[in-house]
Amino acid sequence: MDNKKRGLLIVISGPAGSGKGTLIERLMKSSDRFAYSISATSRPRLANEEDGVNYWYLTREEFEGRISRGEMLEYTEYCGNYYGTPLEEAVATIESGKHLILEIEVDGAMQIKERFPDALLIMILPPSYKKQEERLRTRGRDTEEQILRRLEVTKREIAYLDNYDYVVINHDGEMDRAASDIFAIIHAETLSVKRNLNIRDSFFDN
Amino acid sequence: MDNKKRGLLIVISGPAGSGKGTLIERLMKSSDRFAYSISATSRPRLANEEDGVNYWYLTREEFEGRISRGEMLEYTEYCGNYYGTPLEEAVATIESGKHLILEIEVDGAMQIKERFPDALLIMILPPSYKKQEERLRTRGRDTEEQILRRLEVTKREIAYLDNYDYVVINHDGEMDRAASDIFAIIHAETLSVKRNLNIRDSFFDN
Repeated sequence: MDNKKRGLLIVISGPAGSGKGTLIERLMKSSDRFAYSISATSRPRLANEEDGVNYWYLTREEFEGRISRGEMLEYTEYCGNYYGTPLEEAVATIESGKHLILEIEVDGAMQIKERFPDALLIMILPPSYKKQEERLRTRGRDTEEQILRRLEVTKREIAYLDNYDYVVINHDGEMDRAASDIFAIIHAETLSVKRNLNIRDSFFDN
Repeated sequence: MDNKKRGLLIVISGPAGSGKGTLIERLMKSSDRFAYSISATSRPRLANEEDGVNYWYLTREEFEGRISRGEMLEYTEYCGNYYGTPLEEAVATIESGKHLILEIEVDGAMQIKERFPDALLIMILPPSYKKQEERLRTRGRDTEEQILRRLEVTKREIAYLDNYDYVVINHDGEMDRAASDIFAIIHAETLSVKRNLNIRDSFFDN
């Protein structure tokens, strides 16, 4: 298979209030070259949710079976429930030539980087810690306790920055700029020598 | 000095017929964020040339003095004359925040990479070896002997591809595409984590 035709495995992380969700939505709408992975979970399906749309719903036993067979690209346990990315679907997407976008927190990102060193890791950040706090309070989605917890988690997330390839600052009212940053990163990565070593031979063949 | 404000040191290499000269001209015209380095040479100044425009003209002794004092970023000897990039000017340009573009062959590029591991190395290629030969014959600038020599040199250049960061194919009639590839590469590089490690601290300061 032509190496250049494979899609990228793109991991996007970022603290609460970084706007990564909106940015990913924008990427997905911009081109059918991007695909989004539907996570699997062992938590019960809510009334307004659909299997294969919001999540793939598995029993706890099914999920653990998949983990033990190495069928999860990454997973985490949160509040007693498993959440993770099914491996087979992810690989099929990349092989089809689409760039697979995964919105994942730092622990899952590290699992992916270990298993797929070629994964592209991007961290989205609010302009500053102060600005992040402001955003979390303004959006009014969380309790005071949750806000303080999210801010605390951010410190840990930033400590992982060195393990990421790129960092994009999502400034207030400049979502377009952040989106074009991400486009440039993905565009450039497809031109990286490490992803195009086949050229050393194909150059002389054609 | 703010790390983010430093310009990039960008090395552009490519075989004869890759169109790198035209691409670099286009970069230079596109933004005053780019600066081009004027090379120094020990060859005599021609009647239609100007000091500080085509080259900085030095005597052989002056050039060797600069080499021995480490004042050349890279240099090479060709047909009995020295050619090289003055270090001081290059550093001043980068410190001023401009991206310095150097059009340099593979040996010089390796010298720069050793001295400045952060340099960004881009190789421009024609679509194929066959296409390259066609371009060299069509442009009618070289003798048959020169063409064969240039094609031979290309094999050596491609062998250095692994040492470059990015590879851009300059397809026939698609100069715009190659230029936008280079813009994306430079844009993405300014967002690389290794060039933005200051964010780990500045995020909490502002």
